[in-house]
Amino acid sequence: MAIDRRKLRWNGWGWIDAPDVLGDKADGVWRWMGEVVGIAPLPDTPAMGLENITLPPQRLNDAVLESLTALTAPERVKTDDFERALHARGRSYHDLLHLRAGRLETAPDAVVYPTTTEETAALVAFAADANVALIPFGGGSSVVGGVTAQAAQGQAGAVSVDMTLMDRLLDIDEEALVARAEAGVYGPQLEEALQARGYTLGHYPQSFEFSTLGGWIAPRSAGHQSNKYGKAEHWLVSAKVATPQGVWTTEDYPGSAAGPLLREMLAGSEGMLGIITEAEFKIHPVPEAKDYRGYVFTEFPAGVAAAREMMQQGVQTAMIRLSDKPETFFLNAIDTGDAQGTGPAQFCLMLIGIEGDRATVDTALERSQAIVKANGGIHMGESLGRSWYKGRFETPYLRDPMLDHGLGIDTLETATRWSNMLRLHEAGVKAIAEAIDAHSPGERGIVMAHVSHAYADGASLYFLIAFPRDLDNDVEQWWAIKRAASDAIAANGGTISHHHGVGTDHLPWIAGEKGPIGMGLLRAMKAQIDPTGVLNPGKLIE
Amino acid sequence: MAIDRRKLRWNGWGWIDAPDVLGDKADGVWRWMGEVVGIAPLPDTPAMGLENITLPPQRLNDAVLESLTALTAPERVKTDDFERALHARGRSYHDLLHLRAGRLETAPDAVVYPTTTEETAALVAFAADANVALIPFGGGSSVVGGVTAQAAQGQAGAVSVDMTLMDRLLDIDEEALVARAEAGVYGPQLEEALQARGYTLGHYPQSFEFSTLGGWIAPRSAGHQSNKYGKAEHWLVSAKVATPQGVWTTEDYPGSAAGPLLREMLAGSEGMLGIITEAEFKIHPVPEAKDYRGYVFTEFPAGVAAAREMMQQGVQTAMIRLSDKPETFFLNAIDTGDAQGTGPAQFCLMLIGIEGDRATVDTALERSQAIVKANGGIHMGESLGRSWYKGRFETPYLRDPMLDHGLGIDTLETATRWSNMLRLHEAGVKAIAEAIDAHSPGERGIVMAHVSHAYADGASLYFLIAFPRDLDNDVEQWWAIKRAASDAIAANGGTISHHHGVGTDHLPWIAGEKGPIGMGLLRAMKAQIDPTGVLNPGKLIE
Repeated sequence: MAIDRRKLRWNGWGWIDAPDVLGDKADGVWRWMGEVVGIAPLPDTPAMGLENITLPPQRLNDAVLESLTALTAPERVKTDDFERALHARGRSYHDLLHLRAGRLETAPDAVVYPTTTEETAALVAFAADANVALIPFGGGSSVVGGVTAQAAQGQAGAVSVDMTLMDRLLDIDEEALVARAEAGVYGPQLEEALQARGYTLGHYPQSFEFSTLGGWIAPRSAGHQSNKYGKAEHWLVSAKVATPQGVWTTEDYPGSAAGPLLREMLAGSEGMLGIITEAEFKIHPVPEAKDYRGYVFTEFPAGVAAAREMMQQGVQTAMIRLSDKPETFFLNAIDTGDAQGTGPAQFCLMLIGIEGDRATVDTALERSQAIVKANGGIHMGESLGRSWYKGRFETPYLRDPMLDHGLGIDTLETATRWSNMLRLHEAGVKAIAEAIDAHSPGERGIVMAHVSHAYADGASLYFLIAFPRDLDNDVEQWWAIKRAASDAIAANGGTISHHHGVGTDHLPWIAGEKGPIGMGLLRAMKAQIDPTGVLNPGKLIE
Repeated sequence: MAIDRRKLRWNGWGWIDAPDVLGDKADGVWRWMGEVVGIAPLPDTPAMGLENITLPPQRLNDAVLESLTALTAPERVKTDDFERALHARGRSYHDLLHLRAGRLETAPDAVVYPTTTEETAALVAFAADANVALIPFGGGSSVVGGVTAQAAQGQAGAVSVDMTLMDRLLDIDEEALVARAEAGVYGPQLEEALQARGYTLGHYPQSFEFSTLGGWIAPRSAGHQSNKYGKAEHWLVSAKVATPQGVWTTEDYPGSAAGPLLREMLAGSEGMLGIITEAEFKIHPVPEAKDYRGYVFTEFPAGVAAAREMMQQGVQTAMIRLSDKPETFFLNAIDTGDAQGTGPAQFCLMLIGIEGDRATVDTALERSQAIVKANGGIHMGESLGRSWYKGRFETPYLRDPMLDHGLGIDTLETATRWSNMLRLHEAGVKAIAEAIDAHSPGERGIVMAHVSHAYADGASLYFLIAFPRDLDNDVEQWWAIKRAASDAIAANGGTISHHHGVGTDHLPWIAGEKGPIGMGLLRAMKAQIDPTGVLNPGKLIE
């Protein structure tokens, strides 16, 4: 495994000894943020230390633990507090509220680290027999409850199956530009191995440093540059999956009409159909050139129109990201550390990233700039692009210090057609702002959004919200806001998730989105592959 | 309905009064082809007239027929010989052998023409109750037995559900570039309606004139220009489907992580999950420019390398089609009508089609030509491209006259990765040639192939074969050749179909391709939606 887990925060983001992401801007930012939310000074709300927390008792009997050991190896079955706490939940705001308060009811009874597909399949077969819940675990960065280590009623216990020892790049087909790797490989390690050979997968989600190949596939993850490299469901070529029925190897053809492609059911299956142990995926030559630039529009709809035209005219961008006025203001405030007032900005920032060979980049740059200009946008040069690129994995590091200062922060994402984008943006912002007002102790929260991950027919819309925590009722407060936002998304033509997945947190909306026949199909597939329901119970379809 | 069915050949391709596709070249072509296959002169083997054929007795009782009428309208329930014969089978070589010989065992007992989604859903609900097989029917151009009107054992009879009265373009979302239409609309009618508004779907399969929107989706069809416009599974945005569980409306988001997208199970479902009544699909502005050109390569591998590089470097082509030397020779021979000898040609023809706005076409033309040149290809100008484009729907018209002259003709298509393309091409050609030799009365057949429908990781490979028919055992002869070819495809890393589907003819290979877990998932979905198995029985999963 590339990462020493003991050096990670079990209840937060990243390395224990990571420096404060705000650096010497911190005091200014907290002062300003306190003013914005109406609480000055912000309170001091530290997390509980693991040494002060009592974990729930271990439920697995010795026979089960011995079997897990026999199927793997003694040093790869963990039952200590740190491992159980680290695998208790993912990394959503909601998860962090529980973890920081020492509520570890969902700590798994054990954590097992398989090293081969066959070993994983044997674990799954055993669990199906012994009625033990298995929770596939990669980097554990789910923000929708996808790795919460819960067992269903009547099950003997819950075991996290940590895949991160399966981390090898296995093969590169240089003619087909398809690579094969074990599913537990972390982003940086995978890219390092690929780039040493001159290739890239190009999948850089915000969680890149602490998420894995299998963890990207399971919830249909998207990297920042998905316009070029695709979401997980686009770059996935085939997979091996450990299921109660044995090892499932999906189709691996470039195109096929041999019935529905079942591999399409894997991306988004969130562990309910099996544990992904290996995957083949499309790769690209390491881009010869990268060009990231900023542009501004005085109005959000003009930026949306420009993004739409670029996608529909086939301009080969890697990323288009359009912030609304509040987000433009907020990101600038964090960046400078000396913000005044509450915004919003007078304009909307658009970042356009282009990657590829020199000729493709030049063509796309010229065409994108013509479209920006035609829609009234103004070119701001490369510094904004460079600055975003440099800090593109930093935002998650902001969450722990916000939680330490009595603040809440969450993200919600959806996708819709271009023709519905402005309506959904407006409805989402309104619903979230009203819910924060109704459920927060401070004067107001911050609600901002950006359009990204664009397609010819529509794009993702991503809300980022910050608000003063109701310290005595923080989980209820979050649920009230989340519910209002999700109801507004569902009622206004958005999908409940574009790239985070369903997990536990989006369960209340999935049936409405899929409809009874769609849910019937999902349940039928689940019952066929996992009739006793040991695979990641309580996620996706309950 | 745009087409007067009575003017169509019930046992062949297209209009009854269509002129001979070979025109005044006919005599020369038949003389030459007789020499090639070693039978001169070719025999005269006409098809039986419908007036000389006795159809199987009608199996549905009056109560069922009355119910069908009550659910639709008297004039939309047909039981006459012509309608039954027209709907007995699709249009594969295998189908034509049966139809031309007057074997109409699979004539449906009735043909019903619904006009709304609700009516179709009512028909499906009734059929599930009454245990009547329903066979969804669009243009009826399946070449894999996908519309053969067979009932399963114990079922009361078979009813073809002809969708061609549902042929309206319903809506165009000009901002999202998504259109919605009824599933029974024929290609020409759909494109006419779209192009009147300035848009195109761009889906032009060889069957374009006589196939429908729903018929393209059901088997994952590909149009000639799929590099730009995508296969059906790529342009499909959402669908309404009449199922025994009610009307299923699939997801319609541009991107979603709300679990697996069930709409992915519709493309390729071949009627087994329901009858598609409406679909939303991606559209494009009518291209400002089209550029089709010919290039030649002295060796097939050099052409394959050029096609691969164009796809992997993101050159925005609409079509790349590389014929091997035998196909280059054969197509030229048919085209000129004065061929000598048996070929092959000394070179391989590549056609590259580019469509889009002027700037995109210019860029793609420049980039494609640079890649062709770097791989040793020679530019032959636009005339070859124009000639192909003009005759691109003509090949199917060649089949009836070949059958009239004692010849057999069939196509087989697959797809594989670039790294496996040459191996699969060689193995396929060898297996087919050997099977023709072993099972044909003449000296030899013609086996040729082209690469088309390209992706970054691979492409489709399409075999076209012609051979002297074993007139007394033509079905057995075909099966022997088909089996040998399909076994070779499966054994050499190809999918059993890239865009024709499974139907009945590819059933023997589907389980090997999907594996037991994949087949289990397909069967579970089928059982969930259609527990009594009335929807297109005997197709895809038996």
